[in-house]
Amino acid sequence: MGILRLSHVDITVPDMDLAKAYYTGVMGLDITETTDDRAFFKCWDEEDHHSLAVRYDPRVGIDRFAFKVETEDDLADLEKAVESYGFHVHRVSRGEEVGQGESIRFETPSGHEMELVHEVDKVGGRMSKLNPEIPIDLQGIAPPRMDHMLINAEEVGESAKFFMDVLGFRMTEQLVGGDGHQIGVWMERSHSPHDIAIVNGPNGALHHFAFWLDDWDHVRRSADILAYNAIQIDVGPTRHGVTRGNTIYFFDPMGTRNEVFTGGYRPDPDFPTITWTEDNIGQAVFYYEGEVNERFVTVHT
Amino acid sequence: MGILRLSHVDITVPDMDLAKAYYTGVMGLDITETTDDRAFFKCWDEEDHHSLAVRYDPRVGIDRFAFKVETEDDLADLEKAVESYGFHVHRVSRGEEVGQGESIRFETPSGHEMELVHEVDKVGGRMSKLNPEIPIDLQGIAPPRMDHMLINAEEVGESAKFFMDVLGFRMTEQLVGGDGHQIGVWMERSHSPHDIAIVNGPNGALHHFAFWLDDWDHVRRSADILAYNAIQIDVGPTRHGVTRGNTIYFFDPMGTRNEVFTGGYRPDPDFPTITWTEDNIGQAVFYYEGEVNERFVTVHT
Amino acid sequence: MGILRLSHVDITVPDMDLAKAYYTGVMGLDITETTDDRAFFKCWDEEDHHSLAVRYDPRVGIDRFAFKVETEDDLADLEKAVESYGFHVHRVSRGEEVGQGESIRFETPSGHEMELVHEVDKVGGRMSKLNPEIPIDLQGIAPPRMDHMLINAEEVGESAKFFMDVLGFRMTEQLVGGDGHQIGVWMERSHSPHDIAIVNGPNGALHHFAFWLDDWDHVRRSADILAYNAIQIDVGPTRHGVTRGNTIYFFDPMGTRNEVFTGGYRPDPDFPTITWTEDNIGQAVFYYEGEVNERFVTVHT
Amino acid sequence: MGILRLSHVDITVPDMDLAKAYYTGVMGLDITETTDDRAFFKCWDEEDHHSLAVRYDPRVGIDRFAFKVETEDDLADLEKAVESYGFHVHRVSRGEEVGQGESIRFETPSGHEMELVHEVDKVGGRMSKLNPEIPIDLQGIAPPRMDHMLINAEEVGESAKFFMDVLGFRMTEQLVGGDGHQIGVWMERSHSPHDIAIVNGPNGALHHFAFWLDDWDHVRRSADILAYNAIQIDVGPTRHGVTRGNTIYFFDPMGTRNEVFTGGYRPDPDFPTITWTEDNIGQAVFYYEGEVNERFVTVHT
Repeated sequence: MGILRLSHVDITVPDMDLAKAYYTGVMGLDITETTDDRAFFKCWDEEDHHSLAVRYDPRVGIDRFAFKVETEDDLADLEKAVESYGFHVHRVSRGEEVGQGESIRFETPSGHEMELVHEVDKVGGRMSKLNPEIPIDLQGIAPPRMDHMLINAEEVGESAKFFMDVLGFRMTEQLVGGDGHQIGVWMERSHSPHDIAIVNGPNGALHHFAFWLDDWDHVRRSADILAYNAIQIDVGPTRHGVTRGNTIYFFDPMGTRNEVFTGGYRPDPDFPTITWTEDNIGQAVFYYEGEVNERFVTVHT
Repeated sequence: MGILRLSHVDITVPDMDLAKAYYTGVMGLDITETTDDRAFFKCWDEEDHHSLAVRYDPRVGIDRFAFKVETEDDLADLEKAVESYGFHVHRVSRGEEVGQGESIRFETPSGHEMELVHEVDKVGGRMSKLNPEIPIDLQGIAPPRMDHMLINAEEVGESAKFFMDVLGFRMTEQLVGGDGHQIGVWMERSHSPHDIAIVNGPNGALHHFAFWLDDWDHVRRSADILAYNAIQIDVGPTRHGVTRGNTIYFFDPMGTRNEVFTGGYRPDPDFPTITWTEDNIGQAVFYYEGEVNERFVTVHT
Repeated sequence: MGILRLSHVDITVPDMDLAKAYYTGVMGLDITETTDDRAFFKCWDEEDHHSLAVRYDPRVGIDRFAFKVETEDDLADLEKAVESYGFHVHRVSRGEEVGQGESIRFETPSGHEMELVHEVDKVGGRMSKLNPEIPIDLQGIAPPRMDHMLINAEEVGESAKFFMDVLGFRMTEQLVGGDGHQIGVWMERSHSPHDIAIVNGPNGALHHFAFWLDDWDHVRRSADILAYNAIQIDVGPTRHGVTRGNTIYFFDPMGTRNEVFTGGYRPDPDFPTITWTEDNIGQAVFYYEGEVNERFVTVHT
Repeated sequence: MGILRLSHVDITVPDMDLAKAYYTGVMGLDITETTDDRAFFKCWDEEDHHSLAVRYDPRVGIDRFAFKVETEDDLADLEKAVESYGFHVHRVSRGEEVGQGESIRFETPSGHEMELVHEVDKVGGRMSKLNPEIPIDLQGIAPPRMDHMLINAEEVGESAKFFMDVLGFRMTEQLVGGDGHQIGVWMERSHSPHDIAIVNGPNGALHHFAFWLDDWDHVRRSADILAYNAIQIDVGPTRHGVTRGNTIYFFDPMGTRNEVFTGGYRPDPDFPTITWTEDNIGQAVFYYEGEVNERFVTVHT
């Protein structure tokens, strides 16, 4: 089956205590492990070791992002595919990286370090696997799981081609300029509107990563929790034209943009790509506002 | 019992056809009557003749607003009270005004024409009074009823005093400056967070009137309908600190600000007034954003 | 103004520890005071001392219910009105009853002990009266406030007449038999669909009291919490035809029926009464099911 | 990739006019084609020719159900797999069946006729593929798409084995008896909690098929529409323990059980199966009620 879904995002923060306080107390994630300079977090309904890793660094930024593949063979196949495309692949052996086994790393055309991983330690979710009960005492925003991420690229089309031709992603939506070149692409492997999006911007930059919420009411509760904790909201609650999902963008206290997201359709490989033209960029990004604010376009980490 | 609730708002528009198209097709109101230069609208769950009257005028503005009183005696008592306060009262006889009977009109300290009315023609709502069914085919936003309005006043405290001492309104919330003077007041008669609010601004101006929605999901549907119809959203979906209700502000195509509103508490006369200090004005007005945008403060009709 | 709203319900339970555990841990109320044989509870958004009083007694039942009046004069006026109607009134002096001042008690035509109270100790709600924030850490169902109650009467029409003619209630809805006699009546003082309902059944019995929820999503969360705590659900989540509100009925572990309720219209004194005919009783009570289950009709306390 | 999702369910009805009236007017589906004795329906967000086919027959029942495969090769591979398992496969050529191309049919161990189809005519959904707008004028329940179905089998374990070993389904949940045998299994191909479920009952029977709703509010609106149209609700609105989704079961006017469903988790192939034990069957099926009603267990078509 190849790539299943976004596995984890590894970011850097200048204040580990603040990061831990925010991602547990406000976002409602669980810490599954800490090391000297790192902390690992997961959502309550996730089974795997972590979906977010935070490392201390004076600079706010992104180390890498990882997608999970179904089998050991998928890992080998994708390794060959990336190398055939002309990119160097670095093997990470079991034991080298916290919470996971054998994996591969390489640089994408947009200059991001990307990881593919097969084995991830199973730590289990909050619901039992035997006669489970719906959890009623979740604290903070408490998204059930990580959903997707958006990275920037100077050449969106080149990056999209790599993700589709080499890694097997399928394009659900695209935003195209007057001359037909791609300004943004939304691609999936998990039968959701997007697992990764690539939008025009500086190579190597992270625009945001997003947590899944179950519904519009959870979006409001998230906004209540953000406001209570004086977290700066970037945009929302609102709706995207792209994906037709509902959303809030906001910044963690160190400066990385987070999103909470819900809704959208459920695409299979036979889903025809949706195209947005540049003159509709406002509605494509923020369907209610009909325009994109400056901060949303210019702030990356 | 005196004043019951906001009865109707009378605005002026430069394009009657556009007004009719918007208030029926987008807002989902019913037209109950039209005359040469006026159109009368009501919400689907309202029984009275109209809650919005629109008159042709080259200028966008407000003619007056009306509150409904319970009895004929209430009308007489309030007439005396207003006159005792030193204001001239104009009697409108049955037959003089469309859709209503005997009423009184006078100018408020803030220079608005206000009306009190007892008799209003009953045209009935969409639900039967005998074994009613929940309506399932409402079109447009279709709020069940008008909820409240916000007017501007140069001297908020003076206006608040008039509404409370003479007309019997109760203050649920106030926004006060550093020296203790009132920048905004929210007052009610209907056991809801507010029937009328007065905020610092030019005398005689209308800031907005608001329709009630039943819940947060109806707020999202309203935003979907507004976006579909390319209606300019001013702010929202968001939450107010004041009233703790959820809201969207937007402009009708002629330029009058509308609101859809839901939520809040249910205050009785023993409800202790909530005070907001000026340094919290952002959270008071827009709880999620934590700041008030320029347009919201400066645009009135 | 007279009667404002349902103030508190006083019930008896055979297990005080269980009652405290349930009404705090599951229902999410706050205990404001305990005495040797009683415990007093309030909802998070209520300002008054209590809306539920629980007394130890081997028998599950109801001691009395109390409505709050606006002024001392209202208390005196209603005292006279009840006495004029031929009923004996018992004065309760300040200091005699926990958490409240001067009040009156009398027996209704249906054999219930009813109380009217003016002074109630203000203990305050969870939200500040100065720059309040939306609470985000409520536990259990946590309704913002008590809403209404339903009592039984052998002669519904006689009881309705007493509540309307003597106490000033207004009838929003009624269920009538083929010969026109009233099987059920819903009456209000607080501009909500009902503060008290009276339905045919044994004199002196309590059918249920109900807590207010803010929306349909809170109804689902309540059901999740009830199921998690193995609380027996009687009916719901569903909708009433009467009031058009959404609801769940369930039993506290001692056997008193509780309800959580939301929605409905906002009636003023000019609201025309809605009539349901007996052949539509199913839809009137449970709009989705279209029928009333045996337990709902026969179990009272 | 093999099987993608449930493609369509083919049922029989004794009244075609009533079926058309219900599936368009109440359920809100679109008719895409009619023949002498059949009608084909799709949901508004589906691109394919139909997800429900209705054929006239004096008896209410099921003709077959079809799953869609990704490629022509998948069809050939699965054909071989089914034949290797010892089952006869019938090839349906392009042109033989309405709205679809080459497909295969065979009988499952539970005696159901099952179809696998690759080519289905694309008729397109309601949203444009170019700068799409959120539809705001959907009528009836209007689910965006078909979701899953539940069939009965005398030997659940044998059927589950066939679906998993031969067709590649993954088991998300199972209900097991005291001796460890499977009473029910829930299986998926589309990364949703279930595409098909098999529960103990008579071979060849259809228990229900289910339409997807986007959220809990759409569940309530569905109930409003069902009640308005006097459609018999079987159970709900409620929640399942299995899948943790929200649901209503009801019968179309001819007698086939329908479901509307929302929620649940998003499982990948690494999702560990959840097990329910028979003593928790009540909570597994109806999480709020904690018990399964007789009709739900005994009525099939």
